[in-house]
Amino acid sequence: MKQGIAFGIYSIKDNPKRLAAKIQGQIVDLFLLAGKNVFEDLKIDQSVFENDFLNDFISLGKDKTNAVIQILKNINLEEFSSCVVSNEEVSLHLPVRIGDYTDFYSSEQHAYNVGVMFRDPNNALLTNWKHLPVAYHGRSSSIFVSGQNFHRPKGQVNSSDTTLPGFSESKRLDIELEMATIIGKNNEIGNAVDVNQAEEYVFGFSLFNDWSARDIQRWEYVPLGPFLAKNFFSSIGAWVVPIEELAPFRVDAEVQNPEVLPYLQEKNRKNFDITLEVYLIPNADKTQTEVLLCRSNFKNMYWTVAQQIAHHTVNGCNLNVGDVMGSGTISGKTPDSYGSLLELSWGGKNPITLPDGSTRTFLEDGDTIVIKGYALNGDYSVDFGEVRTTILPSK
Amino acid sequence: MKQGIAFGIYSIKDNPKRLAAKIQGQIVDLFLLAGKNVFEDLKIDQSVFENDFLNDFISLGKDKTNAVIQILKNINLEEFSSCVVSNEEVSLHLPVRIGDYTDFYSSEQHAYNVGVMFRDPNNALLTNWKHLPVAYHGRSSSIFVSGQNFHRPKGQVNSSDTTLPGFSESKRLDIELEMATIIGKNNEIGNAVDVNQAEEYVFGFSLFNDWSARDIQRWEYVPLGPFLAKNFFSSIGAWVVPIEELAPFRVDAEVQNPEVLPYLQEKNRKNFDITLEVYLIPNADKTQTEVLLCRSNFKNMYWTVAQQIAHHTVNGCNLNVGDVMGSGTISGKTPDSYGSLLELSWGGKNPITLPDGSTRTFLEDGDTIVIKGYALNGDYSVDFGEVRTTILPSK
Repeated sequence: MKQGIAFGIYSIKDNPKRLAAKIQGQIVDLFLLAGKNVFEDLKIDQSVFENDFLNDFISLGKDKTNAVIQILKNINLEEFSSCVVSNEEVSLHLPVRIGDYTDFYSSEQHAYNVGVMFRDPNNALLTNWKHLPVAYHGRSSSIFVSGQNFHRPKGQVNSSDTTLPGFSESKRLDIELEMATIIGKNNEIGNAVDVNQAEEYVFGFSLFNDWSARDIQRWEYVPLGPFLAKNFFSSIGAWVVPIEELAPFRVDAEVQNPEVLPYLQEKNRKNFDITLEVYLIPNADKTQTEVLLCRSNFKNMYWTVAQQIAHHTVNGCNLNVGDVMGSGTISGKTPDSYGSLLELSWGGKNPITLPDGSTRTFLEDGDTIVIKGYALNGDYSVDFGEVRTTILPSK
Repeated sequence: MKQGIAFGIYSIKDNPKRLAAKIQGQIVDLFLLAGKNVFEDLKIDQSVFENDFLNDFISLGKDKTNAVIQILKNINLEEFSSCVVSNEEVSLHLPVRIGDYTDFYSSEQHAYNVGVMFRDPNNALLTNWKHLPVAYHGRSSSIFVSGQNFHRPKGQVNSSDTTLPGFSESKRLDIELEMATIIGKNNEIGNAVDVNQAEEYVFGFSLFNDWSARDIQRWEYVPLGPFLAKNFFSSIGAWVVPIEELAPFRVDAEVQNPEVLPYLQEKNRKNFDITLEVYLIPNADKTQTEVLLCRSNFKNMYWTVAQQIAHHTVNGCNLNVGDVMGSGTISGKTPDSYGSLLELSWGGKNPITLPDGSTRTFLEDGDTIVIKGYALNGDYSVDFGEVRTTILPSK
């Protein structure tokens, strides 16, 4: 079995942060590897590999980063065993310095489910939804890496528009199963990226959990969108898988109807067949057993990543290396593939019974959520690792 | 007349960027001044003054930055004339490295006007508006300094929900007269800032023009808020005036009714009496005469900056030095004080006639907008400079 390469940032104790690659399941220190001159012909400054973030590496451009990937795929790890670091001693960090974070809303089943719950089945998708990839700006400062936990947010809540708001801990704390696109190339202000060249602006992908407080969102979000319901915390995976490593997993994306405007029309419309799973470790479970909540797939996207980038820049908006674009919650067609508890419990109406006998509509303090992502094609596989986060009680 | 101090980033030709202070109308190189040992007792590293941004300076903390301000207020500029740089040779740059940008919607008259236009006078303010300072996240990458221009954005537009969208240049390109709050102190994730201590997190203020494409906004903004209608460009002033320099301009803020939740209740509720003006230089005017479009005031805020910060962090959201919070469009009670063309032309229904005989509802290619801000109290004044931007034709 051949595994795709992934990149991340690691450290051991108080040593400086360095770039790491995951090669055949092993974590390899790229600063040490570069010291063995394996990348010599590429003339990459050593500071790129001893660095707090992947941004400088990504900024080398695809010619160089793809050359690095090819070298890593063909390396004999036994020969460079001194560059392999033990999983136990490693701390993994936020992989990129994120300038801006945009969250899309690109899975049709998710948008449909939300529409059915909050409006009606005949009018589930808003009129703009099939014409443009709806998106909004999120908060980049509160994106943290897998393994970092957060306190349950507090805020204003109001269950109707005729009562006065109250103040409380969020009682409808939810996950959003997403993928994060990591931007790999700057787009200068004033330029629109052609949809058929948009993937050149993608370095790769990570797992992403866009935590949401549904009760805070309900009261605050009209007319300018979600704010405090989202910006208290988001969780990103430590490993970024370059888009080139996903070539064997390309699958045709759904034909769009109605036809989209020319700037969104793709010659070759592809998604990525990557299995995504959400597990819950219930707070009371001392055995720490992971309970599968849903199994979805990155291919469940009505709007492709290329369309998202073309839309994002059609007005001349600039993009920078390290920017993150969230896919939006990715839900499949069957109820066991819905990517949020809002959908899985259908707005809290249908509690989920767990193996330990407890039930969940939304999350409880002490619950741990683990998102996993992987893909397999013949004897080639890719592993995105996991995003693991525990809900701490409100401060 | 004593003038308040302002800080910015300047360069001459290809020399490195440095911190500058505006002192009595003159631009003073703080790196050169530090070289004369005037800040010696403060033990500030010279790298703080030769720097691309103010962030490192702001991060010194208020004890040190206020000590610098006191030294600058008392300095004899004739003695340090070699540190004064000529206005003509100076380029001014983006003053801060902006991590995240949040835009509020805190002027009641503006929210009321928009509500009257798009809903009805009896139902102008949405039910949440007087309970929380409505806000959304904006794009930080597309904030540029005064003097930088942009191309008219293009995008999807649709004037109704029953027609198909079209694609065109924005025909309703608008200004938003705002002030930018520059965050001066980090708030760690998980912590809520007390409203009565919130001003400790403010370094100062700059002028801000949050350009808006009203036709793009109309079609895209439901349900997640404005996106491409805003993120093509925002313009910020080159000069940041520290909040301490504005003490003489504090005025009582309006008593809020209904009473707000405890986390938003202030012991001493103050706004800042700062005159804000928007001028238009029409594209056809070869004399470059500035035509006053409106005169508003930073005191027209229903939600104070302290309340904005308390609300922003009540869910534990972190803030970083250099983050920008826009006030939202600041409109006063009289029609000549409305801070956007949307309001000044009442949705395009009442064209504005200019002295050259031309009319405007929204902006034309080649138009230049200049925002100015200043305050005067006895023999003390503060000048925020200007934000000057010209609309270039679509690319």
